[in-house]
Amino acid sequence: MDAGLSPRAFRERVRAGLHTGQTSGVCPGFAQTNLVVLPMAYAYDFLLYAQRNPAAIPLLEVTDAGERLLRVIAPGADTATDYPRYRVYRDGVLTGEPTDVTGLWRDDFVSFHIGCSFSFESALMEAGVPVRNIEENRNVPMFVTNIPCAPAGVFSGTMVVSMRPIPYALIPRAVSVTAQSPRVHGAPVHIGDPSLIGINDITRPDFGEPVTIRPGEQPVFWPCGVTPQVAVLNAKPDIAITHSPGHMLVTDTRNAELRV
Amino acid sequence: MDAGLSPRAFRERVRAGLHTGQTSGVCPGFAQTNLVVLPMAYAYDFLLYAQRNPAAIPLLEVTDAGERLLRVIAPGADTATDYPRYRVYRDGVLTGEPTDVTGLWRDDFVSFHIGCSFSFESALMEAGVPVRNIEENRNVPMFVTNIPCAPAGVFSGTMVVSMRPIPYALIPRAVSVTAQSPRVHGAPVHIGDPSLIGINDITRPDFGEPVTIRPGEQPVFWPCGVTPQVAVLNAKPDIAITHSPGHMLVTDTRNAELRV
Repeated sequence: MDAGLSPRAFRERVRAGLHTGQTSGVCPGFAQTNLVVLPMAYAYDFLLYAQRNPAAIPLLEVTDAGERLLRVIAPGADTATDYPRYRVYRDGVLTGEPTDVTGLWRDDFVSFHIGCSFSFESALMEAGVPVRNIEENRNVPMFVTNIPCAPAGVFSGTMVVSMRPIPYALIPRAVSVTAQSPRVHGAPVHIGDPSLIGINDITRPDFGEPVTIRPGEQPVFWPCGVTPQVAVLNAKPDIAITHSPGHMLVTDTRNAELRV
Repeated sequence: MDAGLSPRAFRERVRAGLHTGQTSGVCPGFAQTNLVVLPMAYAYDFLLYAQRNPAAIPLLEVTDAGERLLRVIAPGADTATDYPRYRVYRDGVLTGEPTDVTGLWRDDFVSFHIGCSFSFESALMEAGVPVRNIEENRNVPMFVTNIPCAPAGVFSGTMVVSMRPIPYALIPRAVSVTAQSPRVHGAPVHIGDPSLIGINDITRPDFGEPVTIRPGEQPVFWPCGVTPQVAVLNAKPDIAITHSPGHMLVTDTRNAELRV
């Protein structure tokens, strides 16, 4: 049972292999992050890709080459052990989803820790906006769209979005609340008709799990930190390590600190 | 006379050498940018320095290596000619302040265009907050502080701030208005006693010009895009080109687009 744990205590459970599941709702009030780890040879292009696509890839911390430990958002957290589950891509092919990547670590690895929309879910609920994935205890549904990201060096691709169904009358409030948190994806990128952004079946997400859309609700789409994984598939670096979608690092940084 | 010119028309005057002065108040409503140009060998460290110090160095556009023309914030603007005045640093020493750097351009140059606090001055005035440097038609006063920036690679240094005196009762409004624009430095970094951030004489700015502080006003300090120039002095790259403080690029991007 993870309720009431501090972020540090939760990370110790993850490090010990005692929590390998997704992290929605874990340690309420504290920010969670998405992960991309790349060899230094790809780091400049990726840092530029993030700069050019800040809504999808808001960087909260970038480590020095070879450094596994974080300093700013979760001092002492270990990039190689404290995410519950990873994805390992070799030459752009997903080759595994381990719970620890210590054995793969290299001295030239740079890790990028990216803000996550889980951070604004508590603000939505405080504002009276329902968050269906939390209500239904599911991983948030995520979709690959046709919205182009600005390319940078070897990285290019389309945006991945997370979707939350919102009653139509609460959508303006959902926009204004999330706009206050640009470092965790900010305002929605699209509201309504999924086909306009290239989503053909709203019941079949590309990542995460489907949630119920009730009558009177519209799907609302936010930029998602899984976006880099599409770019990694395209760039085909010899190795890249990401988090497994929904399986985040829980940081010591409060969501409120990331608001404007 | 530059009143009423479009940003593009103003840039054409700058390119032709017809405007070489500072740009406070030029093309109201449109964002202006600070500049750092570095050889590609320094670009990763600088991009990381910006990521780690986003309040002082909010990047609005980074060009590809060798590319002089902007694409996003001012399509077609020329990095080497469209800032009214530049500073050229060789091995960390200021060697000149030309109005055109075409002859210095190299194929390995990367240019970083940085948000400027001029962008929120109109928002302050619309909110009834006086902006003394505009009232007195002076370049904003800027100071080197003792506030440390997070280092990255060869870059380190303290923060440069711009100062505006604000009547004490309007300071909360000044904070809330500027907090809405995190891409152009956002909320103040300090309010009141200058000595707390290492400023010994508020009447003698390190850059720009002094402005009057009236009874009942407090000095309010915002992170400033001149901050990288301190880091360049420390890192001593073989060559670096910046804007001359206060002499900005006027972009086609409206200040309102940079608000949350």
